[in-house]
Formats: sequence, structure tokens, C-alpha cells
Amino acid sequence: MNTQLIEKVYEEVRRKIASGEIKPDNIEMAVNEIAKCENKDKNEVIEEKKVIEEGTFMQEPGLTEFVGTAIGDTIGLVIANIDSELHAAMGIDKKFHSIGIIGARTGAGPQIMAADEAVKATNTEIVSIELPRDTKGGAGHGSLIIFGAEDVSDARRAVEVTLKELNRTFGDVYGNDAGHIELQYSARASLAIEKAFGAPVGKSFGLIVGGPAAIGVMMADTAVKTANVEIVAYSSPAKGTSYSNEVILAITGDSGAVRQAVISAREVGKKLLNALGDVPTSSTVPYI
Amino acid sequence: MNTQLIEKVYEEVRRKIASGEIKPDNIEMAVNEIAKCENKDKNEVIEEKKVIEEGTFMQEPGLTEFVGTAIGDTIGLVIANIDSELHAAMGIDKKFHSIGIIGARTGAGPQIMAADEAVKATNTEIVSIELPRDTKGGAGHGSLIIFGAEDVSDARRAVEVTLKELNRTFGDVYGNDAGHIELQYSARASLAIEKAFGAPVGKSFGLIVGGPAAIGVMMADTAVKTANVEIVAYSSPAKGTSYSNEVILAITGDSGAVRQAVISAREVGKKLLNALGDVPTSSTVPYI
Amino acid sequence: MNTQLIEKVYEEVRRKIASGEIKPDNIEMAVNEIAKCENKDKNEVIEEKKVIEEGTFMQEPGLTEFVGTAIGDTIGLVIANIDSELHAAMGIDKKFHSIGIIGARTGAGPQIMAADEAVKATNTEIVSIELPRDTKGGAGHGSLIIFGAEDVSDARRAVEVTLKELNRTFGDVYGNDAGHIELQYSARASLAIEKAFGAPVGKSFGLIVGGPAAIGVMMADTAVKTANVEIVAYSSPAKGTSYSNEVILAITGDSGAVRQAVISAREVGKKLLNALGDVPTSSTVPYI
Repeated sequence: MNTQLIEKVYEEVRRKIASGEIKPDNIEMAVNEIAKCENKDKNEVIEEKKVIEEGTFMQEPGLTEFVGTAIGDTIGLVIANIDSELHAAMGIDKKFHSIGIIGARTGAGPQIMAADEAVKATNTEIVSIELPRDTKGGAGHGSLIIFGAEDVSDARRAVEVTLKELNRTFGDVYGNDAGHIELQYSARASLAIEKAFGAPVGKSFGLIVGGPAAIGVMMADTAVKTANVEIVAYSSPAKGTSYSNEVILAITGDSGAVRQAVISAREVGKKLLNALGDVPTSSTVPYI
Repeated sequence: MNTQLIEKVYEEVRRKIASGEIKPDNIEMAVNEIAKCENKDKNEVIEEKKVIEEGTFMQEPGLTEFVGTAIGDTIGLVIANIDSELHAAMGIDKKFHSIGIIGARTGAGPQIMAADEAVKATNTEIVSIELPRDTKGGAGHGSLIIFGAEDVSDARRAVEVTLKELNRTFGDVYGNDAGHIELQYSARASLAIEKAFGAPVGKSFGLIVGGPAAIGVMMADTAVKTANVEIVAYSSPAKGTSYSNEVILAITGDSGAVRQAVISAREVGKKLLNALGDVPTSSTVPYI
Repeated sequence: MNTQLIEKVYEEVRRKIASGEIKPDNIEMAVNEIAKCENKDKNEVIEEKKVIEEGTFMQEPGLTEFVGTAIGDTIGLVIANIDSELHAAMGIDKKFHSIGIIGARTGAGPQIMAADEAVKATNTEIVSIELPRDTKGGAGHGSLIIFGAEDVSDARRAVEVTLKELNRTFGDVYGNDAGHIELQYSARASLAIEKAFGAPVGKSFGLIVGGPAAIGVMMADTAVKTANVEIVAYSSPAKGTSYSNEVILAITGDSGAVRQAVISAREVGKKLLNALGDVPTSSTVPYI
């Protein structure tokens, strides 16, 4: 590719960014293409030509409140001093000037588990966990989790930890066209898990989810028969969910037993989901 | 197509089945393709070459609890001895050791009507009917129906009957991109219809559903004006549904009147749904 | 293409229309194809051969109750004399013999704002506003709005005005694959806005919506910090919505302040939604 041609590519890319025609993914693709042609490092291309400058601006909204995004159309935000009138309307305790916000279209379990690690690691509290009926046409929930903090740096840190953990906590979410199953395990539950499921803090925790709900019933039965665990909560489409097409079982008990129960439920869940569609695949990399 | 080529096709199909890349639909397509080339019957190809053996295995999870699948991403399961702790958490009467489970992403009416035939035909009871807000991004519900039985063979039979009936009860579900309408009719309602809609057992029953809900209002008005029927239940997005975008009218009365009301509502519903999109088509074959 | 062949095409098209196999889009395609072959104008072909006659009939239901359709899979209907039994089941005040019906798969805010203009312009009342969890797999609501009138012509007029206004009220609905934001503004709220949000009639009104909900929180905080406005209602996935993945803020106050608050929220919302996906685009043309 000669220099003139490359210049043309740059120009085209810039034009498309400006008009909003091009997606951030495509910008990166374009940059990679140029880097390959010019035999340069990708970052070099970016710096030299500032091709993705505007694209970056669009991707990173340039708001101090923006923290980042993650899998599941998850967005992380922070508000240093929430407006006092809104504070009241939201029903947030007055001691929290700062809030951290995690919101997602897809996933509630993964976000709650990730937030649980965040409250362990930071000086924050869980203000609220709300579960919209979502997953973009899937069988499950989205999520809105609010952390409260007296200091904005704590709220920001909690959001950062949550976003980072999500890659792991999506590991045992398996999906196909017919539905999804989800497994979660924590050796030591903290405040987010307690808030969401009423599970005892400091003890092992397991979460077993199957959608369509019939699969969840079977997974739940398998889990409790496999090992000596205690049921913390059982939710179904009409009780405890936001009318999602899931059965959700939360368990506690001895660490080994909980893990074993979760693993057995996973095997059954994968087989049943497969009976309805393709082989279910992990959203990231299984961690349990 | 020569023999070598056919062998290659088989090999490729087997590899893709094993890796989970290929869907059951595609397996069938592949088999049909081969049958055409070899000038053989499809079943002959299957038997001879065992092409879809593994595909079948994947589709049937090899669990004794698995009964089968049907239209609407419906899965049928049975648990011979449900765990006693889970039993309590689910709120199931202790007398039922065995449960049959019907779960679906798409459809509540068809599954309830099919389950109604199942309870007529077997020694089972309806333990619960729950309606998630689902249909995979559509306007309606999914379903989770649990049969209780003292004997596992009864529970299994109920699930089998339900799965088999679904092909019929989806017959008057008509959909297009804009929504769906659904009609159901039973000359003699039994326990599933009573549980779901409060309709009197032993009498004629009609169900009229339209989504978006506005279409359902119009269908409901048409139905009750057409014939002398009695309204059993009227549900709308904020009352009686799981926030689905439907109006649902349940009617009872003289058998001929109910049927006539349902048929009139169907005609109006099809026309209105067509005003928003393509010509609505039956999911299977109309039965009313 | 010779005449015989063309005749065959016509015949095939007619047959497919009759059987419901062919979609209106395809009919048009077929007509265009024929027009090209015959070197004729499209309308000429339609008129001459009446190819799409039945197709057209199917699109417009030919019912006196049908008023029209609009963006968002919105349908407008009118019932001159609603059945008295249904009247009671729906819980409608007996004084309204006639009802106007607006139903949509996508959108509640736009339909409510449009209905607000309709009640201002006609002798009707708002009987009910119900919000299904819908938007066809999106993050928000659909809607079912019922106007009551003593005279059917008033009900029809209200539906007509609503359908016509929707093009405008969808103007500040911006979406991408990750979600949507919505802004609404009225210099003078009327009865639909009062019914839906409890906002004071006759005063300026602003609506700020973000989905996923986290974006709505941030938009709400921006709005109330921008100008001196009063919060009328704050809704979130678990309170005040139908489990939609939205935060919805309704504000009132001085006209300039409300407008300014809405505009600031829009800028922040667009940036944040863009952080999750493509550049959000207006559904029609922005009006605020």
C-alpha cells in the first residue's frame, strides 16, 4: 500500500467517524489494517495519525463520571456528589455523598458476584440491587447495582473492581439460542451476595440458574441431592424474579459441598439446554 | 456425486456434530442432501450411515429425567423423588413425591391447554403454573407448569401427553414480526384451565389473546359481541399478566357460542395484526 | 420475459398471496420485477393486473374500528359501543360508551406525550395507561392507552391526533444496539401526563429516560443539577417501571429550566450510550 492510498484510508476513516457511520470496533479494525500495511505498531499508528482520536472520544464519553464498560453491556459510573433532591427520590442513605453505579443489559448474577468482590476490597456499601427483566430478549435479568461511599475514590474503586471481575464471573454462564444456565461460587460471601440473596456473610455460597425455568428446577434438584448444602433462596418466574424465565437456587454450606453441588448442577444444565439447541458455550472462561 | 465425495460429506458432518458446530436442523439438511444424491430414502441414509447418531445423542441428554422437547422451546422433565428440602422451598404439597415439569420460552396458553388434556388423561394434579415474561423478545409469556403425582410413571405420562398435544394447541397461534394472536378452545375444561384462568371445570372454555395488547382489546370486544358467552377473566399488561404486551380474555358458556366467539375474534385479530406487519401465519395447523 | 412467462409470475404471486405465503414486501418486489420486464410503470402494473389487490386488502384490515398505525408498531383503534360485560371487566367508567385505543410494542413516553396532545385537542379523557415490559427485546416499555369518550367521533379524533403526533414525540428517542435514551418536553402538561406521572396539569413537564438504567441515573443527576426543577417521579427497574431496564425521571418547573435540564441530560445520555455501542441516532427528528 503506498502512502497516498494510506492517506485516503485515513481520510475515509476520519469522515466515517465524524458522521457516526463507523463503529469503534471498525475503527480498531481500520487501524490494525493500516498498521499491517505500514509495518508499524498499532499504537504508533494511533499516535502518529490520531486516526481514532474522535473514535476514542466517542467511546470514552469524556465525563469524569464514566469509569468503564464490560461484558453484558455493562457500564460503570460514579457520581461524586449526588444531587440532594435526587438522593431523596432514590431513597439513598444521606451519609453516602458518593455513589458508584453498575448497570447492565445482560446479567445479574455475574454483576452481583463481581460487586461482592468489590465491597470486600473497598470501603463501600451496597445501597441497592435491582433486577430488570432483560438480557435483550433472553430468558434472564439485567442489573442496576449502586454502591454507597463517603468518598468518591472508594466508589470509583468499587466500580473498577466490579468491571474487572466480570470477565471471571461470566465464565460459568453458558448460553445457546434456547436459553442459558449460570453457576456461581464464592468461598466467602460478602455484602452484595447477602443483599441480593439473603445468604450468610463469610460462608461459602453457590448460585444455580437455569432458563427456561424448567431446566433450573432440574439443576436445583441435582444440586441439593449431590451434596449436603442448605437452600438460602429459591426463585421462580412468579416469585423472587422479575418474571424472568429462570429458576434460581442460592445455597450455602461447607465450601467443598457447595462447589460439588454447583458442578453437578452445571453438568445437568448443560445437557438439558443442549436438548433444546446447540451445545451451550461459556461466555468467557469457566472458573468453577 | 460419487462415493468418495459422499464419504467426505459424512465425515464433515460427523466432525461438526462432535464439535458441536452443527445444529440438528443442519444435520437433517445434510442427511436430506445425501439422500437426494444417493437416490435413497432419508431413513435409509440415517440407518446405513448413522450420520445423525451423535446429533441425536446431543439432542437427548441421556438423563432418565428427560422426557422430550416440543415447539416453543418447550422441554419436558420428570423427577421421581424430588429432594425434600427443595420440595419445601418450592411450596409443593408433600403428598407428591414425583413431579412432571413443562417449561417453555414461548407460549403459555398452548402449554396450559396441552397440560389440561394431560391431567384429564392421567392420575396427576396441577401443582403450579407460572408465567414468565418471555417469548424471546416477543409480546407474550413463556411457561413453567408443574404436575404432581404419587407415582413417577403418572408424572411422566402427563409430560408426554402435554408435549404431544402442543403441536395441536399451537395451531391457532398466529404471528408476524409485529406480534401475535392466540386462540384456544376446549369443549370441556379441566384442572389446568381452572388453575390458570379460574374457569369452571367440565364446561366449554375459550381463550382469546392479542399482542400488542390493543389488538387483544378489539378481539375481546368482538368475541363477547358475537355470541352469548360469559367472561371468566380479563387480563392486560398491568393486571393479570406478567407485564406482557397482551390482552387475554377467558370465556365460558355454551360450547357452540364459545367456539363462535373465538372464531370471530380470530378473524379480527388476524386482520389487525396484518395491519402492523406481514400476513400472520399459524405456528402449526389451525385446530379450531 | 415473454407474455406467457409474465402470466405465470402473476399466477404464482396471486397464489402465494392467497395462501398467505407471500409478504407485502415481496409483493412489491414482484410487482417491481414485472414492471421492469414489461417496461411499464409500477402503478400501471398494479392497476392492470391487480396483482397486489389482495395484498393491500390484507394490510388495511377494512374494519370500521381500525384508525391507523404509526412508528413503534403502534396501532390505533376505536370501539363505538364497547360491550357492557367487557366494560365492567376492564373497569371502565360507565359513562364512556366509546373508547379509543392506542397500543404499541415499542414506546410508552412517546405515546403518552402524543396522547397528552390528543386530550388537549378533543373531548376525551384518559381511562387507563398500562405499560407492558416490551420494546421487542429492548430495554423499555410498550404501551396500552385507552381514551374514553361519550361520542365515537371524539374517540376517533383522539386516536388520530395521537398517531399523528408520534412522529414528533419519537424525535428525542435515541437508540443503538446497547439501549436507548428518551427525552420529552411539554410546555403545558395535560391529563395523559398527569395520569402517567402525577405531574401537575398546565405546568411545564420534562421526561428523562435512560436504558440500561445506570445511564438513566446519571442523566437524572445531570438534569436536576443543571437547572432549578422539581422531581415529580423517579422510577427504576424495581419501583415504578414494569421491570424495564430504565431509570425514568419526571420533572416539572419553570419552562426554560425544564427544557435546559432535559437538554443537558440528553447530551450526557448520548455520550454514555455511545460508550456501550454505536453513535445513538434519533428515531425520527429531534424536537427539543
